[in-house]
Amino acid sequence: MEAKFIAFEGGDASGKTTQAERVSQKLNAVFTREPGGTSVGESLRSILLDPKEPVALRAEALLMAASRAQLVQDVIQPTLAEGQHVVTDRFLASSLAYQGYASGLEIDQVLYLSLFATDNLTPDLTILIDLPVEESMKRRGNTPDRFEQENIDFHQRVRNGYLKMAETQSDTWIVIDGTKNQETVATNVDQAILSSLQLA
Amino acid sequence: MEAKFIAFEGGDASGKTTQAERVSQKLNAVFTREPGGTSVGESLRSILLDPKEPVALRAEALLMAASRAQLVQDVIQPTLAEGQHVVTDRFLASSLAYQGYASGLEIDQVLYLSLFATDNLTPDLTILIDLPVEESMKRRGNTPDRFEQENIDFHQRVRNGYLKMAETQSDTWIVIDGTKNQETVATNVDQAILSSLQLA
Repeated sequence: MEAKFIAFEGGDASGKTTQAERVSQKLNAVFTREPGGTSVGESLRSILLDPKEPVALRAEALLMAASRAQLVQDVIQPTLAEGQHVVTDRFLASSLAYQGYASGLEIDQVLYLSLFATDNLTPDLTILIDLPVEESMKRRGNTPDRFEQENIDFHQRVRNGYLKMAETQSDTWIVIDGTKNQETVATNVDQAILSSLQLA
Repeated sequence: MEAKFIAFEGGDASGKTTQAERVSQKLNAVFTREPGGTSVGESLRSILLDPKEPVALRAEALLMAASRAQLVQDVIQPTLAEGQHVVTDRFLASSLAYQGYASGLEIDQVLYLSLFATDNLTPDLTILIDLPVEESMKRRGNTPDRFEQENIDFHQRVRNGYLKMAETQSDTWIVIDGTKNQETVATNVDQAILSSLQLA
């Protein structure tokens, strides 16, 4: 069976990290996250998520893509080539949702940067854990990073962007209702993976 | 008189940094350099120039562009808008020469990243301090950074790339013979700036 590449996407506190880690263990996949996942990428992550560091919007989009390029070359591509599944907490769609739909950079330009970064590699399946912004706000912790500090309108644009991508790419995207309890979400995620990729 | 944006380009040890700093003082311009020139950019510079840090080629191109985006937004664009000249030691053409012509990424793709980064801002004048690779090797110090460690063929491709750009964009590029002594190079640079931009 061919190795599969699964990305989890969603807003803050949607539960996507929990699901990504659980699915990764279940499938004996390599787990990774963005931005980060490599030595270079984790250095960039600390620059990107620092609330005190004033990163220009275009630089932010380029740094996200740079972290992705390093991750694809060092981890994702070699792992898939060896026949092992990869599960990632965020990937290309996060750039489109945050730097594109929410921050206002042109979607086509942000997509170009990402496809350059990945050399056109895209996930076999993207699982969106969808959560209303109000629910996300409630769940959030007390020490928000730079992205979490953005206002409600911003997070609404993130959510709308994700839902639009899921609608227009329904062959490779699945939307899971993140308001359900964790067990139900897990069951729904597993069923989605089984039906889409025939992975038990 | 409108503020001008001048970029110095060239291989290692070509003398371009000396000329860029000298011209900057003479014109009372803001001097900057790439990669770097901002807080974020200098963090990226240290990642990029570290011989021990294995940066993927596509990540390298994206990080160079990210540093450029930050520099344009924070320094170059505001300075020009206030009517003051800007002189930079390396800019967009360095990405094309190093990540494009020398390392093999597609020129069009590298150019796209840079124009995205600068929001289509390009220098009014690019001054190439041209030096044969053998002469550059002789002048080099004993602690080469990651780019200086590349082999002779690589630096030959850098030089050929620069010369090709200068030839195809002769309206905004000037080539200065870097093998001449420093005083002659300075005189030639000043004459080029005077004739191209009417700056004394």
